[in-house]
Amino acid sequence: MPHNIAILGASGYTGAELVRLIATHPTFRIKALSGDRKAGQPMSSVYPHLRHMDLPDLVRIEDIDFAGIDLAFCALPHATSQAVIAKLPSDLKVVDLSADFRLRDAKAYAAWYGKPHSAPSLQKESVYGLTEFYRDQIKSARLVAGTGCNAATGQFALRPLIEAGVIDFDDIIMDLKAASSGAGRSLKEHLLSSEMSENVKAYSVGGTHRHLGEFDQEFSAIAGHDIRVQLTPHLIPATRGIVMTCYLKGDPEIAFQTLSKAYVNEPFIQVLPMGEMPQMKDVRASNFCHIGVAGDRIAGRVTVIATLDNLTKGSSGQAIQNANLMLGEDETTGLMAAPVYP
Amino acid sequence: MPHNIAILGASGYTGAELVRLIATHPTFRIKALSGDRKAGQPMSSVYPHLRHMDLPDLVRIEDIDFAGIDLAFCALPHATSQAVIAKLPSDLKVVDLSADFRLRDAKAYAAWYGKPHSAPSLQKESVYGLTEFYRDQIKSARLVAGTGCNAATGQFALRPLIEAGVIDFDDIIMDLKAASSGAGRSLKEHLLSSEMSENVKAYSVGGTHRHLGEFDQEFSAIAGHDIRVQLTPHLIPATRGIVMTCYLKGDPEIAFQTLSKAYVNEPFIQVLPMGEMPQMKDVRASNFCHIGVAGDRIAGRVTVIATLDNLTKGSSGQAIQNANLMLGEDETTGLMAAPVYP
Amino acid sequence: MPHNIAILGASGYTGAELVRLIATHPTFRIKALSGDRKAGQPMSSVYPHLRHMDLPDLVRIEDIDFAGIDLAFCALPHATSQAVIAKLPSDLKVVDLSADFRLRDAKAYAAWYGKPHSAPSLQKESVYGLTEFYRDQIKSARLVAGTGCNAATGQFALRPLIEAGVIDFDDIIMDLKAASSGAGRSLKEHLLSSEMSENVKAYSVGGTHRHLGEFDQEFSAIAGHDIRVQLTPHLIPATRGIVMTCYLKGDPEIAFQTLSKAYVNEPFIQVLPMGEMPQMKDVRASNFCHIGVAGDRIAGRVTVIATLDNLTKGSSGQAIQNANLMLGEDETTGLMAAPVYP
Amino acid sequence: MPHNIAILGASGYTGAELVRLIATHPTFRIKALSGDRKAGQPMSSVYPHLRHMDLPDLVRIEDIDFAGIDLAFCALPHATSQAVIAKLPSDLKVVDLSADFRLRDAKAYAAWYGKPHSAPSLQKESVYGLTEFYRDQIKSARLVAGTGCNAATGQFALRPLIEAGVIDFDDIIMDLKAASSGAGRSLKEHLLSSEMSENVKAYSVGGTHRHLGEFDQEFSAIAGHDIRVQLTPHLIPATRGIVMTCYLKGDPEIAFQTLSKAYVNEPFIQVLPMGEMPQMKDVRASNFCHIGVAGDRIAGRVTVIATLDNLTKGSSGQAIQNANLMLGEDETTGLMAAPVYP
Repeated sequence: MPHNIAILGASGYTGAELVRLIATHPTFRIKALSGDRKAGQPMSSVYPHLRHMDLPDLVRIEDIDFAGIDLAFCALPHATSQAVIAKLPSDLKVVDLSADFRLRDAKAYAAWYGKPHSAPSLQKESVYGLTEFYRDQIKSARLVAGTGCNAATGQFALRPLIEAGVIDFDDIIMDLKAASSGAGRSLKEHLLSSEMSENVKAYSVGGTHRHLGEFDQEFSAIAGHDIRVQLTPHLIPATRGIVMTCYLKGDPEIAFQTLSKAYVNEPFIQVLPMGEMPQMKDVRASNFCHIGVAGDRIAGRVTVIATLDNLTKGSSGQAIQNANLMLGEDETTGLMAAPVYP
Repeated sequence: MPHNIAILGASGYTGAELVRLIATHPTFRIKALSGDRKAGQPMSSVYPHLRHMDLPDLVRIEDIDFAGIDLAFCALPHATSQAVIAKLPSDLKVVDLSADFRLRDAKAYAAWYGKPHSAPSLQKESVYGLTEFYRDQIKSARLVAGTGCNAATGQFALRPLIEAGVIDFDDIIMDLKAASSGAGRSLKEHLLSSEMSENVKAYSVGGTHRHLGEFDQEFSAIAGHDIRVQLTPHLIPATRGIVMTCYLKGDPEIAFQTLSKAYVNEPFIQVLPMGEMPQMKDVRASNFCHIGVAGDRIAGRVTVIATLDNLTKGSSGQAIQNANLMLGEDETTGLMAAPVYP
Repeated sequence: MPHNIAILGASGYTGAELVRLIATHPTFRIKALSGDRKAGQPMSSVYPHLRHMDLPDLVRIEDIDFAGIDLAFCALPHATSQAVIAKLPSDLKVVDLSADFRLRDAKAYAAWYGKPHSAPSLQKESVYGLTEFYRDQIKSARLVAGTGCNAATGQFALRPLIEAGVIDFDDIIMDLKAASSGAGRSLKEHLLSSEMSENVKAYSVGGTHRHLGEFDQEFSAIAGHDIRVQLTPHLIPATRGIVMTCYLKGDPEIAFQTLSKAYVNEPFIQVLPMGEMPQMKDVRASNFCHIGVAGDRIAGRVTVIATLDNLTKGSSGQAIQNANLMLGEDETTGLMAAPVYP
Repeated sequence: MPHNIAILGASGYTGAELVRLIATHPTFRIKALSGDRKAGQPMSSVYPHLRHMDLPDLVRIEDIDFAGIDLAFCALPHATSQAVIAKLPSDLKVVDLSADFRLRDAKAYAAWYGKPHSAPSLQKESVYGLTEFYRDQIKSARLVAGTGCNAATGQFALRPLIEAGVIDFDDIIMDLKAASSGAGRSLKEHLLSSEMSENVKAYSVGGTHRHLGEFDQEFSAIAGHDIRVQLTPHLIPATRGIVMTCYLKGDPEIAFQTLSKAYVNEPFIQVLPMGEMPQMKDVRASNFCHIGVAGDRIAGRVTVIATLDNLTKGSSGQAIQNANLMLGEDETTGLMAAPVYP
């Protein structure tokens, strides 16, 4: 049965990625695309790579008739999203790709995003969109909050280990390598090609990256008490992809067994053989996440590396995975395309 | 109805690309993968990005039972291909991705490839695999010769113009920008990342690039007399993609109308609005080809730029497009995935 | 004898490149750096790679005391430059890196830059800064106009051939591959790393690139009558460098001899052996220009490829070369650093 | 006073980098270049970017007359180096860039490099070439062992902290991001541009990277007891540069003060203001090392990031810095060129 889809904020990278993935989705039909500053333009003038598709022109959100829409993806900027979703029909299914509904706690939201949430009741209603761990709630949810792309990567590496209690919760260090598209299509000097080529730069150092709010929320909930992890993100000269290197204290073999068991039936999460490490390019443009585990010459140390494509599994692919569940489709529908290599 | 597929030479980039595309093809089933030097290994150890797939291990060609195979893709090196195909069952449908069967004329083959063809009868039998122009012959062919990736790009730009006689045949200049994967996974110094980054280098200058043999054959056949074009290839710092800039003498508007009309019903060939030029990234990892036409401040000059992904539309995507026809499938089956952007 | 130098517009890439080159120049002393929007900041906060240098802070131009300045490099945006230079002390030596004084003809300037020149008397006074061809005039000039980086590359390839009359003036085609830093540090969507990686895109097609004004002026002056060349620029995924592929009609051997002879004593211009083509990376971050010549399988065709670094030989290196002459230094002073490879 | 220099193994990247740096060195004169497999060729055929230089042709080592040579740089592969140096005149000053003389302990060498050292007496004689910390010994040394490029980076970050005892020695974690040129010009599949672009991959995981031998030796010597650090290297899509992110336990402010004080008079080591982190590109093609320090939201955690160019400060620049000292030149001679940005 076809499902009518609207994409709000279709002119950003996650919007374009949604369209790309839906292009070959068997039951999703794109009925509306919004892009306020580009309203009136055909999608192909904003993203010529989509010119072979028969797509509706970009419109303003207020010009969309939501009556015939089954589900809306909301790919708007942070803060804008909560204002827009609050005005949508209250029975419209929504998958939000912004940061607005990731944190369930009002104080935590205010602390990480610098101002109070404007739609606290929606905040409570929303379900955290890490499909592999919130599957049942997502199936019956009306509003699903897509996770941070880095937050997803780190959680795939660590949730089973925290759940099983097989690592030291007080000494979790995460070294993040993130490609440029995670920062979107925004015009910032450090995102220029001339600046990024041949460059690596740490940013949001010292525990200030907002995705830490998600780690705090999720890991603490699993552990039953507050957990605080250490994270240093680095921007690397690539367009798509995240590599999260996690330095842990624990037994490597137990960590490997724990992760292998946790993901054995997951279609998108691949745990590599013990001692093998994943490479970023192996998940490019796909909904897969690869995880590797290794010990160290120093006993009691475990290194776990997880990698995924920030725009696919970290964002728009995850969103479609969730939408599939919300609309009664098989979770993997439209998402089994193999990674693009080389 | 499912079709059983074998891929000979699956350990190269075009082999891996075939597997990637077939991963979501609804009726093709991969039954055998060969890779002589890697025989005995699982495909996922050669290409870990395919580890989520349930694939047969790599074997030697002689260990494949072709009885149950409907079609074989032959992604072997040039020269090896003709020897291998000559030994395959004579009723096995074959799509060859090497250069071995592109040139119909024995002398031309010997001239461009430096030695006589070892399977001249097969050479005569083969059909040139530029789908959009050889569709009917491909449908009933047993052996289809995939085109050169650069040769495909240039022909998409020029065939309709030559057919219509709207450009000067004696002054066709093609400036080619080609990414590294066109050279395969071979260990050559100039293909190292340290060498290619921040580099552009012309190669095969002076009319020595082998794909010129295909231009000679095809353009001369259309024109009814010998045509020789000028081509300077440049290696650019990118992994996938070809941009062919064609400098022509003729009327820009007529050229635009000719190309637009020629491709109006083609699902994979997109002619951009007059004066707009395509960008390489807009066709990345897809089976699409974008073409742009512009005039110049100098009257009587036309510039046509065509771009496609050498591994997809230029090679493995084209091969599947042809296999679809040979096996009675719709030509576009499994090939409508949108380009990956950014 | 030390020379006191001011750099106006030091916060752009050409400004930073001037500082980089002067860092090891034996007689130039940087006495003032201007950067209007960054006034008050240390240079190291705008360009941390220069933090080891003892540099004056950025100031506004009006706060510079030009009394003790021997020469000012003006690295301001086009149009701004002419307004600023008009107000500088009339005896101050100036090397301008903008486009403002490249065209000697007022009508040509207005046609290419869309409005009348605001300092026509300065326009007449200025000397075109292509050192190898204007050496004597530059030595005694007060105001030297740095050339366009692409215009320099094309002229190095073609001036001797036009001068000698050994190519067909009516059929000169130039295919340009240009890296991103030629567009400066400006915040434009197409210059984002996510957009540029794995991309090639033609721009300013159809004879609209402003550097054509320089080719028109210079080539016509040499020939004694109007010459119009054809140029298609392409943005390529690299940071520094220009490759200009010139398609010409003439005798290859004569072209090679003509170029070899013309540059035999030039310290920065290297003509490669006949048939060898230069690669962009071989001149990276240096003041050298490499030129290659080849014939074609079609008789009477010559291909000349020239490459240089747009920020060095194409701009700031050229500027210092000219400043050396204007200040009585040896032309090569401070410019003999070898290219950075790989 | 001019010094006559020989470079053994000039056909690799560190050899070419030595030539690049010596090109503008005021007193070093290149008298001999060896490259066994390329013997007989001019250097410009192996490295065309050096074609403007007047260099001796490549020869075999046995054909070099060392009588007139003041110092030889030995840029040969590991293991080859010890055999070659053992045969050189015993009074010839040598700076070795291989790994052969970095470890003073014979057992440690055998353990890390898999076989006994063939020149144990030379091994004892050699001085570890980390200039900033072995300056006095280097001045009077005959044989100096260039450090590992990654080992240098990590030591610049950590030596002063270990010396001052201000961090926990039992919990030092280093996350390394390394560019491709560190692996040299060797033909390995994972170094191909097609493989490296858009990729990040951990390697030598689990405490197996050979540069750990240097950390063990040096840090243990400083501390007075065995120290073992944890290191995970990652190959990143760039050509030059190393970023070492060090996760430490200690007081951030004390760490910052300790590093700032240690390097206050060092010409090449720049400690950034507290909380600012260096970027890889800011030291490109230069002999500088930038270091940043930050605390974390978790008390007692310190992050130190150091970056340098593996071919310059990490290898050939360091070698020249040492050669300057050995030959009585000022340590910075020929090495003050500013980084190339962008």
